[in-house]
Amino acid sequence: MKMKDKITEKSIELFGEKGFNETSIQDIVDSLGVTKGTFYYYFESKQQLLMDIHLTFIDDLLSRQKDILSDQSKSCKTKIFDIVRMLIKNIEKHGWDALIFFREIRHLNEEQMDKIVKKRALFQHHLEDLIKLGMSQGEFRGGLPADIVTLGILGMCNWSYFWFDPKGRVPDEKVAMIYVDMVLNGIAVQR
Amino acid sequence: MKMKDKITEKSIELFGEKGFNETSIQDIVDSLGVTKGTFYYYFESKQQLLMDIHLTFIDDLLSRQKDILSDQSKSCKTKIFDIVRMLIKNIEKHGWDALIFFREIRHLNEEQMDKIVKKRALFQHHLEDLIKLGMSQGEFRGGLPADIVTLGILGMCNWSYFWFDPKGRVPDEKVAMIYVDMVLNGIAVQR
Repeated sequence: MKMKDKITEKSIELFGEKGFNETSIQDIVDSLGVTKGTFYYYFESKQQLLMDIHLTFIDDLLSRQKDILSDQSKSCKTKIFDIVRMLIKNIEKHGWDALIFFREIRHLNEEQMDKIVKKRALFQHHLEDLIKLGMSQGEFRGGLPADIVTLGILGMCNWSYFWFDPKGRVPDEKVAMIYVDMVLNGIAVQR
Repeated sequence: MKMKDKITEKSIELFGEKGFNETSIQDIVDSLGVTKGTFYYYFESKQQLLMDIHLTFIDDLLSRQKDILSDQSKSCKTKIFDIVRMLIKNIEKHGWDALIFFREIRHLNEEQMDKIVKKRALFQHHLEDLIKLGMSQGEFRGGLPADIVTLGILGMCNWSYFWFDPKGRVPDEKVAMIYVDMVLNGIAVQR
């Protein structure tokens, strides 16, 4: 692994365990057995490193979402499933990153935060457009506001970060299937 | 307002804005124009105050959930709606408290955290029992695991803390209705 990636990986772990404010650059370099000079060769500051972590996290999600959405062969239902599965798998795989993404965003400066918030909004709007497309094509029923439905789906997925246990009874693939079944078909007996 | 409540309210605001670690007892008493002695008259430590905030938050939710669940005249569907509405309204009304509840739990000591985690689990299990009751009584369809459905519903509600805007287009009551409609009936056109 490259030194820059090593620093990033270790910082994610330390920010996750101790918190961003509670972790010093000294802590990071000590735990890797390198000097502060090495850190500053790759990053201007701890805040810039935090921004790097946020950017990598959201850019990766946006790029994978784009791949899913641009697949012409899939129905809107299948695309919803793919996006839900991606989010839940991502949280399972990158537990600490996700934690930092949700918890430590307040430590970015205004300009950085603005950039990340806009990218998060973009992810949300792509999902909302998919819901609207499904409504106009008759896959989804009308009458429900697409923006609130979108936030409901994102909430279900993102919340899994607070409880998902990779060693648990239900694997991530199965959680995604249950959530999508629930969102598409509802839990009530339809009379 | 009693002094103890004033200290609590102001601390919630400061912990919310600056973070628990970044707020000193000095900051709290300065912003109220009282002395540290006043603080220590009511609280042993900043951590005990944080525990107080967590306890009040979850005990209030548990007590209101109990009232909803014990109402014999209501269907399981209505009870789900009442619980979803309660959670969303609670987040709207107590934005900072909710933030502290989600973000600052790691600053409790082990014994305190254990107590809060158990109470949160209790809230979750009560909702799960309601889903199971609805299944056994034929209001909800079988086949979906009640525990994952429960976590999905809690995720939708709790996530609203990250986006709900009291000045927004859709009031909390309406968000609750949309979410419950979505969870009960699904968004897909049923063929």
